[in-house]
Amino acid sequence: MNEMRVPEPTLRRLPWYLAYLKMAAAQGETVISSTQIAQAISVSASQIAKDLSFIKISGKTRIGYDIHKLIEVLETFLGFGRVHQAYLFGAGNLGGALLHDKGLSQYGMEILAGFDVNPRLVGREVNGIPVYHLDEYFERQRQQPASIGILTVPVQKAQETTDYIIRGGIRAIWNFTPFRISVPEHIVVQNTSIYAHLAVMFNRLESGMEQL
Amino acid sequence: MNEMRVPEPTLRRLPWYLAYLKMAAAQGETVISSTQIAQAISVSASQIAKDLSFIKISGKTRIGYDIHKLIEVLETFLGFGRVHQAYLFGAGNLGGALLHDKGLSQYGMEILAGFDVNPRLVGREVNGIPVYHLDEYFERQRQQPASIGILTVPVQKAQETTDYIIRGGIRAIWNFTPFRISVPEHIVVQNTSIYAHLAVMFNRLESGMEQL
Repeated sequence: MNEMRVPEPTLRRLPWYLAYLKMAAAQGETVISSTQIAQAISVSASQIAKDLSFIKISGKTRIGYDIHKLIEVLETFLGFGRVHQAYLFGAGNLGGALLHDKGLSQYGMEILAGFDVNPRLVGREVNGIPVYHLDEYFERQRQQPASIGILTVPVQKAQETTDYIIRGGIRAIWNFTPFRISVPEHIVVQNTSIYAHLAVMFNRLESGMEQL
Repeated sequence: MNEMRVPEPTLRRLPWYLAYLKMAAAQGETVISSTQIAQAISVSASQIAKDLSFIKISGKTRIGYDIHKLIEVLETFLGFGRVHQAYLFGAGNLGGALLHDKGLSQYGMEILAGFDVNPRLVGREVNGIPVYHLDEYFERQRQQPASIGILTVPVQKAQETTDYIIRGGIRAIWNFTPFRISVPEHIVVQNTSIYAHLAVMFNRLESGMEQL
């Protein structure tokens, strides 16, 4: 399925289509065209058709895509259909928040445990997920391996923790810190700098106010 | 300060520089060059110098930037220094998680309250933040206005809630749903599709495994 590398912008748009298709299916639609999707979510129909061509599903000319088939194929393709095990590193503020997010499991991610060094967090459970001392990570990883590490440590610990968790066997890092971590070539990094998005929003909001 | 529109990629990189500078300052550094920043975070020195030119601070040739000055100017520029009031819409999974994130206030965002329609959530407090019924939003907004709305409702409610909260006076929407919302031109939208990032990571992880 992944013979060719799917461009990242495509991968980011596919979940938008999926979200819209699920909505349309819930409203009783059974067939949908890229033009209909385009009108609903402000992406051009040609872009949608191009993006969908990566997932090897083709619509019928003048009819469109079978909506339930398309949902199924998209979910499988995006990896939302199977469970990916993850450990979370840094169970404070944002880390603790992510442990509370039951939505992640709906999108195929199961957080097995959190790790921290703060005695007020270690030994507790957050939303039913245990928080262990960081020193236990190698042993836990041996007992119950996870391929994904969610990085929510303080920024000054970002690189050090990255090196440590890769040594233990993590192969993909979901980096929520604003720090640009360095990793060996075979390690996948996904940066999700939510505070950087905040900065973009503040800036746009204030530019708008000046124009008033 | 915002006479020219700062490109979004620049706005997204500035918090990386800020994170690194704070680390370097904590380690006792007082002066820093764009080459030093470049080596630490894998962005080219010329890109860094270009990005920093937007914030009207200039380094001294062959010496570099005063690190404390640069931190202060960056924080002000990014809006992390002042408090932006926000209301959160949808206090379930991810919304509830964000209410738990004490980190947001460190980056200049204060969530005044959450809104929901679920009787199990309405009337509760999460991390000291009250959750009200969505029907109370107009009245609350009148009493204590917020300019930012954090959108964490289920995807099928995304557009409807967007329209409703804009009518009440929200001017910027931080959209965490995977739905592409439509808004009037003067409304700022920042999309943070964390589940879309998840899809990118799953795909890269599985492509990597196939190559083994």
